[in-house]
Amino acid sequence: MIPESLDGNNNPSFVLRSINDLAFEDRPKPVLQSPHDVLLEIGPFVVKEPMVLGHEASGTVIEIGKKVTSLKKGDRVAMEPGVSCRRCSACKRGTYNLCKEMAFAATPPYDGTLARFYALPEDLCYKLPEHVSLQEGAMLEPLSVAVHMVRQAKVRHGDSVVIFGAGPIGLLCCAVARAYGPWKVIAVDIQKERLAFAREFAASATFEYSGGTAEESAARLIEDNGLGEGADVAIDASGAASSIRTAIHVLRMGGSFVQGGMPHADVPFPMVEACTKELTVRGSFRYGPKDYDTALGMVATGAVDVKRLITKTVAFEEAEKAFYEVKEGKVIKLLIAGPSQGT
Amino acid sequence: MIPESLDGNNNPSFVLRSINDLAFEDRPKPVLQSPHDVLLEIGPFVVKEPMVLGHEASGTVIEIGKKVTSLKKGDRVAMEPGVSCRRCSACKRGTYNLCKEMAFAATPPYDGTLARFYALPEDLCYKLPEHVSLQEGAMLEPLSVAVHMVRQAKVRHGDSVVIFGAGPIGLLCCAVARAYGPWKVIAVDIQKERLAFAREFAASATFEYSGGTAEESAARLIEDNGLGEGADVAIDASGAASSIRTAIHVLRMGGSFVQGGMPHADVPFPMVEACTKELTVRGSFRYGPKDYDTALGMVATGAVDVKRLITKTVAFEEAEKAFYEVKEGKVIKLLIAGPSQGT
Amino acid sequence: MIPESLDGNNNPSFVLRSINDLAFEDRPKPVLQSPHDVLLEIGPFVVKEPMVLGHEASGTVIEIGKKVTSLKKGDRVAMEPGVSCRRCSACKRGTYNLCKEMAFAATPPYDGTLARFYALPEDLCYKLPEHVSLQEGAMLEPLSVAVHMVRQAKVRHGDSVVIFGAGPIGLLCCAVARAYGPWKVIAVDIQKERLAFAREFAASATFEYSGGTAEESAARLIEDNGLGEGADVAIDASGAASSIRTAIHVLRMGGSFVQGGMPHADVPFPMVEACTKELTVRGSFRYGPKDYDTALGMVATGAVDVKRLITKTVAFEEAEKAFYEVKEGKVIKLLIAGPSQGT
Amino acid sequence: MIPESLDGNNNPSFVLRSINDLAFEDRPKPVLQSPHDVLLEIGPFVVKEPMVLGHEASGTVIEIGKKVTSLKKGDRVAMEPGVSCRRCSACKRGTYNLCKEMAFAATPPYDGTLARFYALPEDLCYKLPEHVSLQEGAMLEPLSVAVHMVRQAKVRHGDSVVIFGAGPIGLLCCAVARAYGPWKVIAVDIQKERLAFAREFAASATFEYSGGTAEESAARLIEDNGLGEGADVAIDASGAASSIRTAIHVLRMGGSFVQGGMPHADVPFPMVEACTKELTVRGSFRYGPKDYDTALGMVATGAVDVKRLITKTVAFEEAEKAFYEVKEGKVIKLLIAGPSQGT
Repeated sequence: MIPESLDGNNNPSFVLRSINDLAFEDRPKPVLQSPHDVLLEIGPFVVKEPMVLGHEASGTVIEIGKKVTSLKKGDRVAMEPGVSCRRCSACKRGTYNLCKEMAFAATPPYDGTLARFYALPEDLCYKLPEHVSLQEGAMLEPLSVAVHMVRQAKVRHGDSVVIFGAGPIGLLCCAVARAYGPWKVIAVDIQKERLAFAREFAASATFEYSGGTAEESAARLIEDNGLGEGADVAIDASGAASSIRTAIHVLRMGGSFVQGGMPHADVPFPMVEACTKELTVRGSFRYGPKDYDTALGMVATGAVDVKRLITKTVAFEEAEKAFYEVKEGKVIKLLIAGPSQGT
Repeated sequence: MIPESLDGNNNPSFVLRSINDLAFEDRPKPVLQSPHDVLLEIGPFVVKEPMVLGHEASGTVIEIGKKVTSLKKGDRVAMEPGVSCRRCSACKRGTYNLCKEMAFAATPPYDGTLARFYALPEDLCYKLPEHVSLQEGAMLEPLSVAVHMVRQAKVRHGDSVVIFGAGPIGLLCCAVARAYGPWKVIAVDIQKERLAFAREFAASATFEYSGGTAEESAARLIEDNGLGEGADVAIDASGAASSIRTAIHVLRMGGSFVQGGMPHADVPFPMVEACTKELTVRGSFRYGPKDYDTALGMVATGAVDVKRLITKTVAFEEAEKAFYEVKEGKVIKLLIAGPSQGT
Repeated sequence: MIPESLDGNNNPSFVLRSINDLAFEDRPKPVLQSPHDVLLEIGPFVVKEPMVLGHEASGTVIEIGKKVTSLKKGDRVAMEPGVSCRRCSACKRGTYNLCKEMAFAATPPYDGTLARFYALPEDLCYKLPEHVSLQEGAMLEPLSVAVHMVRQAKVRHGDSVVIFGAGPIGLLCCAVARAYGPWKVIAVDIQKERLAFAREFAASATFEYSGGTAEESAARLIEDNGLGEGADVAIDASGAASSIRTAIHVLRMGGSFVQGGMPHADVPFPMVEACTKELTVRGSFRYGPKDYDTALGMVATGAVDVKRLITKTVAFEEAEKAFYEVKEGKVIKLLIAGPSQGT
Repeated sequence: MIPESLDGNNNPSFVLRSINDLAFEDRPKPVLQSPHDVLLEIGPFVVKEPMVLGHEASGTVIEIGKKVTSLKKGDRVAMEPGVSCRRCSACKRGTYNLCKEMAFAATPPYDGTLARFYALPEDLCYKLPEHVSLQEGAMLEPLSVAVHMVRQAKVRHGDSVVIFGAGPIGLLCCAVARAYGPWKVIAVDIQKERLAFAREFAASATFEYSGGTAEESAARLIEDNGLGEGADVAIDASGAASSIRTAIHVLRMGGSFVQGGMPHADVPFPMVEACTKELTVRGSFRYGPKDYDTALGMVATGAVDVKRLITKTVAFEEAEKAFYEVKEGKVIKLLIAGPSQGT
């Protein structure tokens, strides 16, 4: 239950007790574990689809550890939610997103950020410039996912890029890819409305998938968009087998494919095509070094307008209802205000 | 039919007229098309599985074009059989193996090298040092395929490398990988005899695949070989779906997979695994810049002993019979002597 | 001498007979040497500093070889002036700009393009879209130089980039770098007017070099522009030792430097700095695969407005006078109309 | 002063109080600062030239922190002496050797390892297999420097590699490079004895530098060794300007140079050569991710025999005398036994 009035130490938190048991609890206010940590009072959260309890958030610094030098009380920051071990070979090699001991907010057994207070190491807090809102800050999480996907694809200026899936991540991929100066960014989806929004938001062209074999779809996509020998880059943000298969057929010799969306099962993969065209296929998982920085830069300079993806903002007390709205597909992206804020 | 005695211009050739019609014909002696070409009298051929009519060969220079500077009459050379267009973007980007206009020996409509004479551009002829035989020279073709596959995998010193399939290409991959100084090279196959040979030839360990799911096989392979968090590199030279699936499960976070063998159909691919481990999957197709040079260097320095893969050498007249022996799996690699040679 | 009236075969050409002997000659109309060649009637030329006789040009196709498929009579094209051997290891590795047998227009013994007719292989002719003028086409040559330099620097979205020298190439580097989405592009020069133009044309900030040690200049540049631990990328388009030295000091740990401008002598190089910061230093020479394509894309999409760099256009007959104007620094970039055109 | 008999807590240490004041002190036994640390009783040290007080060491684990999982009491380990901050962008990007807050043993204000006890995080301790001695373990430090240098050079199988300077690091570079399967490894020095040892130890050829311009030396080096268009890779482990200049001239178009040795001043650098040949020049600083692992692998498999570089081993009490011997150039590499060991 949420206390009627908050004193300085209440920490009302929204907790997933079990699959069907979402509840508010008043958890203990966190204590800094390391001199490099800061304590944050959390602002708005983003509700993500597929549903995750609060790992997309921003907040305000209310306490800093002794060795913290880059932040001070009152700074508004975006929060990168995963704390890696910093010691394993994945961390030391520059791929901390692959750390097996990652403590990732809202992934059991770690608490999510859907609470009043949260402690985080300084280097995972990204100070927001004055003109960037906490709402935009909360959107850096999905934007960083898209930044990482586009980086894995190694998009070059002048490339043709096809992005499968025009949900939130696919849309953000379109916007990120566009910032790399490609020749064309083509959004692919099965829903006309999503494609209309994609076109308006960031894509230079769209393609409505409407059945047929992967070869046929790919041929039509190439034909419709004048891609000649095929696309340079294809990114899947849908997880659908038909998208993945079409992507492989749509690529040119030596092209590059990135898998970001998560398929439900094994995918019947056109390996002969991948082999004879010497494609490079890379997975993309969360975000790594510099991805949050890049995402913040894109928001700060106006290259990506994340505000347009926020469907509405609701009060903290309505969090439970909000989750079900997202689950039912009624809204795309939805912000929940922090417990000490109004909407 | 092969003439009873050869004069200077007969060019007896072994030709695939249609699927079931192999025959000898006396073709016209080729004329140099470019001042950069040389004319070769061909020595031994390699019979490859899957069966291709003579694109693995070596020979002796008998005529040189006006602008040829690096070769002279009498030089013994290995022949790189594919002539790319040199003008398309694949060629200019450093990936001539992906050229769509590649004129590849023995791939219709181009003649194979199973003839007495053959004309080829100078830069595709690799001069053999004195101590390297024409037989070894003919083996540079499959060795270059293996060099290219291992290169696509970007093997680093100290890596653990698992190679699926212990046929000729898989065996050569083991030997090439070994030359890169890996920690372990593990050969995987379903046949005990092949694995015994692999171990003796180049692998540091072997793994006999014997059913079970890909996850189970991978877990056992990791356990048996002390691979800890998984292998750094996996290469498929088998084309079997079970190999490909096991390879994906055997890799560590951030590992690298190369597809060299050609599957018969779509492969049920563990894409979630590839995605969450951020694997890099690359196809490998034939060979490109520097692959023949590297292959020759490996033979010349003794790093790879290709002679051990040659099961036997037969006379040119027995070419037809030889093809059927290979097709039936009676021999692994088999050399056919050139029309003007004895065995 | 230029004939008073041109018939279909006159080929008036502007020739450098010796260092001080520039003259017009009526050269034979070129004949296509290869079925892949096209014959062009040349349009405008660019005069470049340091002075080179006509290797920056565009023209109209007037004849095509038998195997030419992508061009037809009447097409307007930009001309990539260097024809590489296509056979050496540099060419096959994807670095044809490093070919030792490059036949480069206007580099002895090869004729320049400052003539009425010119024959060139199809793959070095870049078809101009309708809305791109021949004048813009002629500017693709210096723009491709800049594209190559920025590519060598591997600029990433969000990087800070410092470009030394605000002459034509430096200005184009600013514009190209900007298209890669950097955080900042800072132009450095000793002349206020050039910096003012750079700022207006493409740089996000400028820095006036005014003496002092390289360390001091670098410290001031970092301070003035809030670069924190140093710039990610520095590119030298000046050839001046003081620029190169300042560039090395301005970079962050692990930063990247590209040398494009040509120094007159050995440079006193801060190697300890380069070593302890693990910098990557790369040379950039002319342009290679995809550079012209990218340059054309940048002009066609309006990402780079090359027209603003053309100071004036003069008639063909005034070519000699024009060269001396450029040599004396009176103009930045100057176009010379083709012999069959007006100005 | 060193106590006559050691009890469990004495920590006799060899300390540089000021430039000319080397002394033994009994320092407090270190206490574990983190649950990830282990406490080591140090074995032999390596004396390095230029003189550094004890950062090359190995030892035996005598206490482990609560979260240590990969080590237990009694394990013998090699010690990687630098502890990076693990939080800055250099650390997170996979380049912890470039961390500005690196706490590097024996670099003021951090103590060296020339003491009886030393505490170090678990992940910087490399467990030695039974057949690798503590003496060999102590040599992993200079070997890791060489591994890093060769990695920066991106040596490929079949490359020609020229290494300037045949002191300890240069010799180890030869051995490491050799493990990558190059065509040739050529050691360059001014001393005949060093070259004789280099040849015997790891180089496939040697070149005695004996004056003349860099161009002349490079031409002779290329000629003598049949390098044709120049070497693929050059590595400087000497810091001498003449070496660096010769290296730049000895490289082929597109070749790669690594600076490992530390020059005393700015180097007159042939930048025109670096530019027109599009060389890649990289600095190398200490060692980073996987370098110690690779070095240990090379010792464990016998690929590099570091024992041959140890000139002699002296008792701990003779440390002071030993430093002066190294300083005077009387020995190449010298081990000092730990305080609780005999020699």
